Amino acid sequence: MHAQSRPPIVLVIGGNDPSGGAGLTADIQSVSALGGHPAPVVSAITVQDTVNAQTTAPVPPALIVEQARALFADMPVAAIKLGLIASAEAAQSLAYLLASHRQLPLVVDPVLAAGGGMPFADDALVDAYLKLLAPLATIITPNTAESHRLAPQAADGEARAAALLALGCRHVLIKGADEQTTDVHNTLFSRDGSTRHFTWPRMPGSYHGSGCTLASAIATLLGLGHTPLAAVEIAQRYTWEAVRQAWKLGKGQRIPNRQAKS
Amino acid sequence: MHAQSRPPIVLVIGGNDPSGGAGLTADIQSVSALGGHPAPVVSAITVQDTVNAQTTAPVPPALIVEQARALFADMPVAAIKLGLIASAEAAQSLAYLLASHRQLPLVVDPVLAAGGGMPFADDALVDAYLKLLAPLATIITPNTAESHRLAPQAADGEARAAALLALGCRHVLIKGADEQTTDVHNTLFSRDGSTRHFTWPRMPGSYHGSGCTLASAIATLLGLGHTPLAAVEIAQRYTWEAVRQAWKLGKGQRIPNRQAKS
Repeated sequence: MHAQSRPPIVLVIGGNDPSGGAGLTADIQSVSALGGHPAPVVSAITVQDTVNAQTTAPVPPALIVEQARALFADMPVAAIKLGLIASAEAAQSLAYLLASHRQLPLVVDPVLAAGGGMPFADDALVDAYLKLLAPLATIITPNTAESHRLAPQAADGEARAAALLALGCRHVLIKGADEQTTDVHNTLFSRDGSTRHFTWPRMPGSYHGSGCTLASAIATLLGLGHTPLAAVEIAQRYTWEAVRQAWKLGKGQRIPNRQAKS
Repeated sequence: MHAQSRPPIVLVIGGNDPSGGAGLTADIQSVSALGGHPAPVVSAITVQDTVNAQTTAPVPPALIVEQARALFADMPVAAIKLGLIASAEAAQSLAYLLASHRQLPLVVDPVLAAGGGMPFADDALVDAYLKLLAPLATIITPNTAESHRLAPQAADGEARAAALLALGCRHVLIKGADEQTTDVHNTLFSRDGSTRHFTWPRMPGSYHGSGCTLASAIATLLGLGHTPLAAVEIAQRYTWEAVRQAWKLGKGQRIPNRQAKS
């Protein structure tokens, strides 16, 4: 076994979704498909289906941190993806832990509501994203609605991204899949002042777990050594293909096919 | 999208392992690799690494059942794999739920201890496996040590399998990976009286999550419509290949490479 052939270990912190559409299943499948080894830490147990979420049972912050500490003590983590966090207290505990691993790429996907609309985040948690987690992030990946919630004072997308970059994160990817445009427009804003626009043909319908898929894919690609721009480009292509080949498995949103071959 | 190209939905019930070696990650990767769609229900949050388990935080039985009920209401489940259960109460709740889905193939993997030896099951839970879960199982997959614990009075492997078959399960696969034999000997005992022996070259070292991998693979293959014998054969080959290409990622047991191409 050659050391260089070992997959990078990607710590994915998020909620479990029993439909297998979003959350840790999306993370585990995406990391695996792109050549990483997923190491999952459960932050919440959700009861949800492809239509909406019914219940979110938060995992106590101490237990979230204990899971992650066991991993850090055992394995060389290469990248981190932070998904659903169910409380401001959990965000505080995680920020404290992640601050001691600042050398690692960190993708923060601010999951503020379920696909069907059920809110996951109260104002205290939004505040923790801004003050504690965004400053640690290599890249933060809100959709348009989330970017409005995170930067409500800003006049437009550029100003919202600037507000988030001012908090200390290095890149902001604002995703337009939740808008009504003909194509999907995603924009990557970086601290060096550069802005990249990405346009993807919009697929009909809506998809359960596409945001988790994209964020985990970016984390894996960063763990493999790609630059943030390359990681964002490759991860979008992977996610788009998974969405294009999505399955209708339940009564609601389709589920991305994360094993899809392009 | 053609209906026949949709993946079978495989409900996997088990614990989360933050190392990504065993538990739900093993289940999700195995189901996905073999062409199923994994739908995970969390029964316990464990703190463990590739050396041993430190903590098992059981999920309340009502929340386990609520997760599974949401799935059954939304999607056509094709097969079920039951892994780690952290308490006799959880086993009781699950048995009640699973009894109303007796038409579905059910693989029961009796996880009685962690790879490093930490016990997961007390006597009440062993009793629940025997009285409540084994009777519902299409196949139960103990290793040799687990078969001793489940049938302590029996004189040999054949008698242990007979004792388990007498409880009502249709097949018993006793796995010999935990023995010291030169090759690994697995034996499939069936209610029709047939017995099949399988011999696999033993790989050096030990592997974290190989049992979860095998049981989830069997469930997926049953969900795809294979006979139990074919499912057991194909799943063993898949698991053996994953073990043969296992990664040394942490300080303890190697982790099967469930994406491995044979």
